[in-house]
Amino acid sequence: MGGMTRFDSATAITAAGPGSYTADLDAGYLIGDAMNGGYLMAIMQAAALAESSHPHAVSSAFHFLRPAGEGRLHVEATTLKTGRRVTTLQVAAAQHGAQLVVATISCAEVDAAAVPDYQAPFPSIPTLDQCYRYEPRSGQDSVPAFSERVDQFYTPTTWERLRGRGAERVPELAGYVQPSERDGGATEDPCGFLPLAVDALPPVVAALGSWRWSPTVELTWHMRAVPEPGPLMFLARAEVISDGWFDETVDLWDGKGTLVAQSRQLARSGR
Amino acid sequence: MGGMTRFDSATAITAAGPGSYTADLDAGYLIGDAMNGGYLMAIMQAAALAESSHPHAVSSAFHFLRPAGEGRLHVEATTLKTGRRVTTLQVAAAQHGAQLVVATISCAEVDAAAVPDYQAPFPSIPTLDQCYRYEPRSGQDSVPAFSERVDQFYTPTTWERLRGRGAERVPELAGYVQPSERDGGATEDPCGFLPLAVDALPPVVAALGSWRWSPTVELTWHMRAVPEPGPLMFLARAEVISDGWFDETVDLWDGKGTLVAQSRQLARSGR
Repeated sequence: MGGMTRFDSATAITAAGPGSYTADLDAGYLIGDAMNGGYLMAIMQAAALAESSHPHAVSSAFHFLRPAGEGRLHVEATTLKTGRRVTTLQVAAAQHGAQLVVATISCAEVDAAAVPDYQAPFPSIPTLDQCYRYEPRSGQDSVPAFSERVDQFYTPTTWERLRGRGAERVPELAGYVQPSERDGGATEDPCGFLPLAVDALPPVVAALGSWRWSPTVELTWHMRAVPEPGPLMFLARAEVISDGWFDETVDLWDGKGTLVAQSRQLARSGR
Repeated sequence: MGGMTRFDSATAITAAGPGSYTADLDAGYLIGDAMNGGYLMAIMQAAALAESSHPHAVSSAFHFLRPAGEGRLHVEATTLKTGRRVTTLQVAAAQHGAQLVVATISCAEVDAAAVPDYQAPFPSIPTLDQCYRYEPRSGQDSVPAFSERVDQFYTPTTWERLRGRGAERVPELAGYVQPSERDGGATEDPCGFLPLAVDALPPVVAALGSWRWSPTVELTWHMRAVPEPGPLMFLARAEVISDGWFDETVDLWDGKGTLVAQSRQLARSGR
């Protein structure tokens, strides 16, 4: 707490002209040779919000064209419509002149004091102190740097699935995520962490023993509430794995049990 | 069967230059003064596929800026990346010089013979012959033309909910949809009907007695399989209704029980 965290620094944008921003990508967010998609989404969201008079990215759709590597990222944000309640922007991220990710982001204000008229029943997930801390490939030479950027805790069932010992073949992962304690803990703006949180988990197909590279083709997420500070509970699941494609739906709840983010992506299962 | 249906004619596009298309909107797809969003999505998908070497729109994200009315629609499709497996395009629809809907659509080929590696358990929904045919506001003066464009059948539970007689307050609707028999039945291409099908239902909040105008802010849908001809089973549900916003997730299965489409939208609940 207090001062910028590594996430805050890594997602800082610099104005470079009307609607133009740059960010210097932090190699700590690499998974292999490619930057984590959630990290790029967080930077693109910052650019959209810098251009919008509304404070929250409520609905954001990203198409991933090419992976990003180390170095400077160029982000262009173009306002499509400014409304009283909603402002919609197109945002494109490029490196070395090639477009990598395109997004359309609708910004609005989410009332932090809103009480839901309806919320679906809360899933039955063990508490954080019943979960195992995730330390991927610990003891191995090739620990990906990214695994240190987000603290992850898995339920006992999820833990078994990720170790290939699941009793049944179910592509579902559950547990808790929070900004990395070793990187400085809570981020300046808990809403800025949400795009990273929905895309920081191992691919849900890992629950079936497939740890291969799973490039995201498209990811849409909706912010549904302003999160309370603290760990977020997550539930990730797939409905269909077929023909080299899988969907991954990730829901996040804050410590008060409020659904704060809903995400769904379509990805390729690596070969 | 045989010959073009009204849907096929209504979604026909005419080339008007490189990447440019026009369509003459059919007033039969109006809901009040605004064209149904699924109808516009079907036209924009046709433009994307006309520009792509891949035959299926596998992942499509739409942001709705302004409602469309009667008359000519101008559609511009711009290819962002052509890949061996996926082509991604941006598509914009305009009327009278104003952008109405923007989309990013990734096209690929879905293998019609693919057998899923995994599919989530099939929901328990009554068969079509146990369902009630939906005839909205029949007997009233103001039957919206759109209600005749898609045949809808509701389960007994859904029927009760839509009549305000649900035993519990659950925003979930289930049943079957198919191209309108009175409009000529099955469409030329069953995949072309999917964007209409995911957005043809009453808003899921209607299950709670709210039949008000519910403008969609964003809708993303993924095509997961080539549908068999015939009615599609649907399940629509909301996770959260809060602060004037609601999500609506719609899944569609074909007669063989294969999940063919997954859709989620974020919408405003009308005041």
